[in-house]
Formats: sequence, C-alpha cells, structure tokens
Amino acid sequence: MGGGTVSDASIFDLIIVGGGPGGYNAAERAAAGGLNILVVEKEHLGGVCLNRGCIPTKTLLAAAKHYKIAKDSADFGVNVGDVSMDWKTAFKRKTKTVRALRSGVASKLKKHKVTVVEGEASFIDRSTIDVGGTRYGASKILIATGSRPFIPPIPGAEGPGVLTSREILDIDHIPESLVVIGGGVIGVEFASLFSTLGTTVTVVEMLPEIVPSLDGDVAALLRERLQGEVTFKLGARVEKIDGTTVHFSDAQGGGSVTGEAVLMSVGRRPVTDGMGLEDIGLDIRRGAVVVDEKMRTNLPGIWAAGDCTGKSLLAHSAYRMGEVAVADMLSGGQGRDRMRYDAIPSVVYSLPEAAGVGLREADAEKAGRKVIVKKLPMQYSGRYLAEYGQDPGFGKVVIDAETRALLGVHLAGGQCSEIIWGAGALIEAEFRVDDVRELIFPHPTVSEIVREVIWEF
Amino acid sequence: MGGGTVSDASIFDLIIVGGGPGGYNAAERAAAGGLNILVVEKEHLGGVCLNRGCIPTKTLLAAAKHYKIAKDSADFGVNVGDVSMDWKTAFKRKTKTVRALRSGVASKLKKHKVTVVEGEASFIDRSTIDVGGTRYGASKILIATGSRPFIPPIPGAEGPGVLTSREILDIDHIPESLVVIGGGVIGVEFASLFSTLGTTVTVVEMLPEIVPSLDGDVAALLRERLQGEVTFKLGARVEKIDGTTVHFSDAQGGGSVTGEAVLMSVGRRPVTDGMGLEDIGLDIRRGAVVVDEKMRTNLPGIWAAGDCTGKSLLAHSAYRMGEVAVADMLSGGQGRDRMRYDAIPSVVYSLPEAAGVGLREADAEKAGRKVIVKKLPMQYSGRYLAEYGQDPGFGKVVIDAETRALLGVHLAGGQCSEIIWGAGALIEAEFRVDDVRELIFPHPTVSEIVREVIWEF
Repeated sequence: MGGGTVSDASIFDLIIVGGGPGGYNAAERAAAGGLNILVVEKEHLGGVCLNRGCIPTKTLLAAAKHYKIAKDSADFGVNVGDVSMDWKTAFKRKTKTVRALRSGVASKLKKHKVTVVEGEASFIDRSTIDVGGTRYGASKILIATGSRPFIPPIPGAEGPGVLTSREILDIDHIPESLVVIGGGVIGVEFASLFSTLGTTVTVVEMLPEIVPSLDGDVAALLRERLQGEVTFKLGARVEKIDGTTVHFSDAQGGGSVTGEAVLMSVGRRPVTDGMGLEDIGLDIRRGAVVVDEKMRTNLPGIWAAGDCTGKSLLAHSAYRMGEVAVADMLSGGQGRDRMRYDAIPSVVYSLPEAAGVGLREADAEKAGRKVIVKKLPMQYSGRYLAEYGQDPGFGKVVIDAETRALLGVHLAGGQCSEIIWGAGALIEAEFRVDDVRELIFPHPTVSEIVREVIWEF
Repeated sequence: MGGGTVSDASIFDLIIVGGGPGGYNAAERAAAGGLNILVVEKEHLGGVCLNRGCIPTKTLLAAAKHYKIAKDSADFGVNVGDVSMDWKTAFKRKTKTVRALRSGVASKLKKHKVTVVEGEASFIDRSTIDVGGTRYGASKILIATGSRPFIPPIPGAEGPGVLTSREILDIDHIPESLVVIGGGVIGVEFASLFSTLGTTVTVVEMLPEIVPSLDGDVAALLRERLQGEVTFKLGARVEKIDGTTVHFSDAQGGGSVTGEAVLMSVGRRPVTDGMGLEDIGLDIRRGAVVVDEKMRTNLPGIWAAGDCTGKSLLAHSAYRMGEVAVADMLSGGQGRDRMRYDAIPSVVYSLPEAAGVGLREADAEKAGRKVIVKKLPMQYSGRYLAEYGQDPGFGKVVIDAETRALLGVHLAGGQCSEIIWGAGALIEAEFRVDDVRELIFPHPTVSEIVREVIWEF
C-alpha cells in the first residue's frame, strides 16, 4: 500500500473521518447494519467530548460536588472536620475515567470489526482519502471532524496565559483566581467548578445574560445562584488581554480584571479546513459543512454529522446526526429518519444544574407564536425540599395556547440533568396537557415538578 | 349544628374522607372543577406519606447520603476529618421539612376554598357523615382513608420493643443494632438508612429475595450492594419475638437475632374499619374497598382512592386514583379517564437506589408473553462512571417480541429514581424500539443507559 494507489485491502464500504460522538457511534450503527468500516481519528477515539470536554469536566464536577456536599453537610446533621481538595487525586480520577471510556469505545468498535487508523485524513477525491501516505477508498464517506475552540481576534488572545477548555483541563493545581471570557455553557461549568473549589472567579460576558442557550429565567436563576461565588461582568466586551489581565469596555466605562489564568470560552468552530474538502467540491458555508435533514452533503455518497455541520454543537446531537446519516445510507435513501432539532435537551452541569428542552418563552415571543407559560418553585416537590431545602430552583413549562401541546420544559436547581430526557420524550410524542396529567410520576421525586406545573394550566 | 341534623352550612358537593395523597390532591382537582368540598382528616393533612412515610424517610435518607458522600469522598480527592452524624439535627430537619410540606398542602386547600375538619368520620348513611358529633352531607363522597402497618399474628409482635415505620421515625438516637422483619421497600429503606449511619442491621425476610415489587435482577443487585453493611436472612419465617429477639425458622434449622430495636415492616393494610362503611352497604373485600377502573364503589355517589382500595399502595397511585375519581364526578360519568396500573413507577430510595416501571421479566414469563430482554451495566453511561465509578448498577429493558413495543424499564444504581418517570411516559405513549432510538438523550447523563440498552435490540 501507500504511495498513491488504493489496494483491495484499503477499500471499505464506509469511511468515517473523525472518531468522536458523530463518528464512533455512527460506526457502531453502520457496522450493525453490515457495512465494512474505516474510522480515521487524528488523536483519541471518543473525540473532544470524551477526552477533552463533557467527560473530564463532569468527572471534575463530580469531585467538586463531593467537596461541596462535604462542606455543606452541617444542615443535614453531618459533622465533618476540615475539608480539603486534593487536586492530584481528582485529576487522576479524571484521567482514569476518560481512559476507561475511551477503551470502551475502542472495544465496541473492535467488537463490530471496525478498522481504526490514527492520523489526519485528506481528501484525494470524492471517494478516496489519504492518511499519512496511505490511501483508502469507499463509496460512502461520513465527515465527523468536530470543532475546536474559537479564539476571537482580540489583542493578546493567543498569549500563553490564555487557556482554552482543552488546556485548563490539564491544569496541575487549583488556581487562586481565574478570569473566564464567555459565560456560555463551557464558561459557566468551569466557573462553577473552580469557584466551588475556592478559586476567585470572574466571568466576562458580552451579552446581557449568561448561557444564552438556556431559557432566560433559568439562566437568570443560575447566575443569581452562582453570584457571590462568581463575579459576573455582563454586557462587557473584551478589548485586549495583557498576559492574564483582561481589559473590557462596558456601559459603566469599562475596567480590567486579572487572574492567575484566563479561560477563553467564547464558543467553538467547525473543523473543516486543511483536508481538501473544498477541493472536492463540498459545499462549506461559514466554515461548516452544509447538510440537509438526512445529513447528506451536496456531494452524493458524502454525509456529515456532528459539530462540523455547525448545527447544535452537542455530543448528543452528533450521535443522532450520525445515526440519521447511517439510516439514510443503509436504506438507500428510502428511510424515514430525519434530523429534528426541536427536542434536543440542553444541560448545564454547574452546581446547581440547569436543563431545558424544546421551545423557550423567548423563542415563542420572537416567532409570534401563542403560548401559555407556567412556572413553580422546586419546593413544590417534597423530594427537592428533603434534598435541597430552600435552595432556589423552578420548573417552567411552555404549551401551545391553542392545541395545549407541550412545547418546552425548563428546569433549574438540584440535579435536573437526569430529569430532562423524559420531557424531550413527551415533546417528541406530542403530548398535550391532558396526556401528561394521566402519567403517573414516582413520588417523591424532583421529576414531579413537571406534573405540578402541568396541573397549573 | 351538631346533634344529628344537617344544617345548610354543612352541605357540600363533595366530602373527602382522608387528607392524604388520595384525598388532598383530589380536593384540589375537584375544587378547580368548581366543587364545594369538605376534607375530613383524623390526624395531619398530607397523610402517612407526608407525615410518617415517604417524606420523613427521604429527608433522613438525604442526611444519610450526605454522611456517606462525606465519608467516601477520598476517591474523588476530597479529604475530610472525622465524619459524625448528629441525629438530633437530622431529626429536626426532618420535622421542619414535614411541617413545610404540610403547611403547603393546607395553604393549597385554603386557596381552593376547601373546608378541612379534624376528626374521625363515621358514616350515617350514603350521603351523610358524622365527625365528632357534627353531621355533614354531600351527594358525592370520596373515601381515601389510607392504610396502616400490618402486624402479623406472631407471638410477641405487639411488644414494646417492636416498632413500625411510624414509631421508628420518632426514634431519638441511632440504634446500635436493628432487626428488620420484612425486606420489602420500607424495610430495605430503613435498613439502608441505619446501616449507612453505623447501625448493625439484620433483615429477616420470608421470601427467597428482597423487595418482590422490583424486577428480580434489580432486587438481587440491591441485596448484593447492601450486603456486608446489612445481613440478610432470606427464606426465614419469624416464629416469635421475645422483647427484641426475633426467632425464625428457615431451611438451615432456624435461629435468632437480637437488636436494640425491632422494626416490623411486613406490609400495610387498608383502613376501612370503624367508620360504618359496611353498614351503609359498601362492598369491602379482604378489608379493601372494591372499586372499578373509574374508582367507583358499588354505591352510586361514593368513590374510593388510594391505599384503602388495596391496589398499588403508593402515594403516586393514590394521586392518580383521586384524579380519576374526580374526573368521573366532574364529567358526570362521561369522561375518558380510567385508572391504569401498567406504568406505575416503583422506586426504592436506598443507597444506591433502584427503580422500575412496567412489565418485569418474571411477569412476562408467568403470563407466557413473548418478550425480549436486554441489560447493560451502568458503566455504559459516561456520567455514571464520572459520578459512581465502578459501583455496580445496570439498566434493563423488556420489549414485546412481536411489536417491539417498550413494556418495562428497570434500573439499579446511582440516583435512578429521577430517571424512571420518562420510561413510564414512553410505555404509556406506546413507544417502540425504533421510536426510542429517535429520541435525543442529553449527554452525558445516566439516563442515557435507557438509550444504550435500546440499541441492543
């Protein structure tokens, strides 16, 4: 092999470029469907989510949660001595968790007889790629190249004191202070993590509110809950960074804040460059691969899934996009599966958590859609009261004013991340208020807040 | 008033006998529907669940969870000094939580202009009751009198060292040792609570496995997880109790076990006696009020809901039964609501938790129904691994072999109590495997285990 020819051995039914959530999950599904598959991964199977995103942050957040619970246990009658955090142990546990999951992905692919090669793919033509001098061919290609942190063109943004989510996950100690540029999901999770562990955290956000992907009330409550531990500079535009001093302008005349480190978390951008994608005629707009609802690109035989499409940059969206693409491949374009974006849950794993799915109140207003919105404090749930006492939190439900169909569910407080999936199912199943009323929710659970709000309509 | 006549002031549209989950919730719904309502409660609004059941146990279990997390935090890098439990504080917190919820129920009823009288009701005729000498009349009556702990006819069972769930919730210290008779939900929750706090606990259970309401695999895993902290005597029949020594017979020739206290938790029985229910001609069988799927009794104008019906002795079932009864009343018998028992979630709030909804593998076998069952360890969820590491747990799904409709979901490990509601919704909505595959579960969550198992079919 090598040197420009495609031998028989390097011909596959499907080549997947990228071994992250958009890729490895699709590989499993396609292998189960009988395809002979090559996955090309440039770094680690599992992608950013598993190796440098969701999983390591959630492992560290689990440690922070243990720390917080240990410290705040006196109300429950639990007395502890001095509580301290040993970052090295937490860090090792993170590494161990990531490795376990990564080897889980590898063994699943192996079980499905998927071939994995390490390296960077470049496109030779619409059915041939090159990886480190070896060529591989397939009649079907799935592009799942993911995304990378966006570094805005701000003076000093590329300096050594400015970390992205990638580098901060490798930090070998708990910083004394941290400036977070960008109050989106990633910024807020790190702000919550480090402020819980004693770091002085300042979040500088250009918009008037944090986490714009959340319902406005949920975002506001999250900010109020974190305030005190975290300082928020909202409506603040970063003008330049001097080492680890962030200078910003705002309506109050601006200012600056210095931290031991600066985290740049203003968003992520699709990875579509340096692979020759444009050379083979692939339609790329604003750096993202253009796809239809079947995850087809403009080129027959080439699909795309995950962050590289620029739509819904979430691991679980990537999973589903990959599945939709595979369903389209396996059905010869005749399947019913299509990618829908109206019931994709969104979770912030801060302490406390926030979660939402479906239409938000602001979306409805913007679209001029007639909805009814009801909201109740989490204390309507006896379980919440038993576990979290008077900690603020709420459940909020949006329904269609006419059909009374459930359109959105938004939760703040406690561990609502594990509750939200059911709300997504209700929205997908087009449940109306009366249908939800017939459901039996286990008592006492925090999930009952959904039921409580539903009875308010 | 009083003295046998019914004045205008004491005529209501609906009298509800019992202010527990079957009663107070129905009162709210019926009041929202325009009815003028009297609730008669002999002790505390909220019933056993709120005052002497679910809520106080969950509050104490929340304290035990804090204690356990504080003690087990070293793996996460959290170092604590000596951890100790101050029962008095935990106890006060329990009392405070119960009071907050009870006053919440009272204020909801007040808001709905529901009249509440304290006392024991007795039936004068099919539309008249007496409470402490005052008579009240209504064309509609809902019986929601609940249940009480069952004391089996075992010598010594009524002795002062033998507590029921009612008395043990008032215990003023953590006992050194405890013998639990009955390994059902209540027995196992108390066993988990006290063993976590250092009590030497022995559970004596007549059946070969604990918690028969759970899926067999889930129950077995729960037992294995608790074993070590809790000693289980299975297949052991209690013959007599001497003070706090429990004598039992089993296949190994029997034995005895002594504790500082004995908890009798072999089940609960409907409360239907001493109210003259039989005198007015109400159909009562095996101590339970007989009802149809609309919660109607044999007597027109009289409905029953909750534990007193002897069906599904769970607060959340009682809620729904009350709602079905009210829907029948308000629709003049023309409504579509009926009580269904096939998607009632069942949760054990032990540490770790167990939860299930719908058909169990054993049910299918018994009914000769063709099903397919798949099961995966919880470690397939990255979030579970991040939060619980290698703690054993699993997800198990039962589908119909022919239609591939989802019939049952059973979970063990972590905090699965908050996940199970969504599975109930899927079963009610008659989702099939392919429908569940189209749902987008938030990543990373433990709830994804449902999705993982679904892809195994």
